[in-house]
Amino acid sequence: MTGGGPGAGSLTVGVDIGGTKIAAGLVDEQGAVVRRTRRDTPGRTLAPRAVEDAIADAVQELLDAAGERAYPAVGIGAAGFVSSDRATVVFAPHLAWRDEPLRDALAGRLGVPVVVDNDANAAGWAEHRYGAGQGEPRLLLVTLGTGIGGALLLDGEVERGRWGLAGEFGHMQVVPEGHRCECGNRGCWEQYASGKALQREAREMLLAGSPYAAGLARWSEGDPGRVEGHHVTAAARDGDGAALDLIGDVGRWLGVGLANLAAALDPGRILVGGGVSQSGELLLRPTREAFARQLTGRGHRPLAPITATDLGTDAGLIGAAGLAREETMADREDGSD
Amino acid sequence: MTGGGPGAGSLTVGVDIGGTKIAAGLVDEQGAVVRRTRRDTPGRTLAPRAVEDAIADAVQELLDAAGERAYPAVGIGAAGFVSSDRATVVFAPHLAWRDEPLRDALAGRLGVPVVVDNDANAAGWAEHRYGAGQGEPRLLLVTLGTGIGGALLLDGEVERGRWGLAGEFGHMQVVPEGHRCECGNRGCWEQYASGKALQREAREMLLAGSPYAAGLARWSEGDPGRVEGHHVTAAARDGDGAALDLIGDVGRWLGVGLANLAAALDPGRILVGGGVSQSGELLLRPTREAFARQLTGRGHRPLAPITATDLGTDAGLIGAAGLAREETMADREDGSD
Repeated sequence: MTGGGPGAGSLTVGVDIGGTKIAAGLVDEQGAVVRRTRRDTPGRTLAPRAVEDAIADAVQELLDAAGERAYPAVGIGAAGFVSSDRATVVFAPHLAWRDEPLRDALAGRLGVPVVVDNDANAAGWAEHRYGAGQGEPRLLLVTLGTGIGGALLLDGEVERGRWGLAGEFGHMQVVPEGHRCECGNRGCWEQYASGKALQREAREMLLAGSPYAAGLARWSEGDPGRVEGHHVTAAARDGDGAALDLIGDVGRWLGVGLANLAAALDPGRILVGGGVSQSGELLLRPTREAFARQLTGRGHRPLAPITATDLGTDAGLIGAAGLAREETMADREDGSD
Repeated sequence: MTGGGPGAGSLTVGVDIGGTKIAAGLVDEQGAVVRRTRRDTPGRTLAPRAVEDAIADAVQELLDAAGERAYPAVGIGAAGFVSSDRATVVFAPHLAWRDEPLRDALAGRLGVPVVVDNDANAAGWAEHRYGAGQGEPRLLLVTLGTGIGGALLLDGEVERGRWGLAGEFGHMQVVPEGHRCECGNRGCWEQYASGKALQREAREMLLAGSPYAAGLARWSEGDPGRVEGHHVTAAARDGDGAALDLIGDVGRWLGVGLANLAAALDPGRILVGGGVSQSGELLLRPTREAFARQLTGRGHRPLAPITATDLGTDAGLIGAAGLAREETMADREDGSD
């Protein structure tokens, strides 16, 4: 019997670890999420073990729920730089991990094999397999959450680079001496095109005391520090002019950065996912306009379509589960030879 | 008899077409150049046919010299955006070509099959096959000439993107609202890290009347417009402080842009070629310093080595010849089945 047989369990746990939340789900063999749970990501000032505790707790809840239907492996997508052997998170700008042996630490606690990948790689894999990237041989994905995650899929395979660290598009510098980034540099793309950028600009507009920010003030209750990116998205949906401007600014920076990536990589399709992409066309329209304005050689080349992901914020956990299933099945089949 | 047999001819003509010169050579089966010739690139104000005339003239000279030893195909590396079927130069910022059917136009004139590729793709292929990139599965190459050419080699194969246009690293924006580029945009990387950048900065320093530019003034003869990039390189080799500063500035911009590419692509080795790279360590030392200062995640990841190419300014024509030979041989072998 190979790993694909009924005895292997049809439901795989996938976990997506971001800067603010841990989302986990039970994923079936067609990539559908049949049960979900989530935890807040413990703050960066806490020990790395606090994040592992939260992950293990969420995973155990799902394994218990799946019972005999649980596939015996867990997939983790982490918002960080994952080593090429995919055992270690070497660096995570938005988390406390530095050279963290995540795979073995979790496998020891959970008693099943664990497959770790970068969260955006997992999301890109899922979109190519099940979502908006199906059939595209040169697929680029960016996820806009706290920062920017990125993945390049060549013929359906994640391009990982020499040491597993490819796809960190969010840390390309777009503004010399620009805003300081959690990675330690200045001017990184994700400081201009992410949920963090939305939040910073909304707070600055409130701090400036602009009457134009009145629509945003309802969330601040007198303290601009209370306004978060998703408030801006909500205000924009209500037609608030300042919120629409701020999302447009993020969209334009997104388009400029995507034009840079298209110059380098010439993708056939570009997918935009992550929490900020829930702004939909409010974000994507200015993104496409800036992309079309900025792409080098425009007028002499096709414009890669820029669309939302299909799987939304589930993409990371679906991909983590799918990669865990696929890779451990290959191991099981190798072992049965 | 397959194409590889003795009857096929051992010497292949390769041509490298840049913004200022056309370099052509006869290349043997080990990648050595046994004979060279060159022409100036006709100006962009002339008809595209003027460039074809110059190419055909150089190629014919070499075919005549090779006689019976000529392999019956010609390889062209062109400083432009080449379509995925490699028949057409769709756009060339430094040349007059727009949707130019170069492959068929030249094949018709020369009476042999012609294989067209981007010049930097050809150079990258040659460095991986014969030069400083041998054995590196994730190889990045940039060539600094009039502009910046680029290539990404994955397991020895040129990554061309969806429409053949990958590797145009020089047209990634590094300075918002920066210097105007021939591609039509502003702030492109090649406006800061290329021979053109060296030339512009040297001329501006002379125009400013700075006594610090005295070492550069010997080439200007009172007209700053006469100073070219290679003059700055020569002055720097003589120890001129202003020239060393300008090459250092180009090196730092080169390092910043390479750190951006390493964030995205995580190459295992970075090669720097093209005319400006003849400055050697005067350029590469500040490049490596800026790269090490700017690479995201530094301290938690290896620094890809940054070195000069092995094949120098011959890399493009060697690669063009090699690709022409390899691809037409495959065709000949397919035909003999």
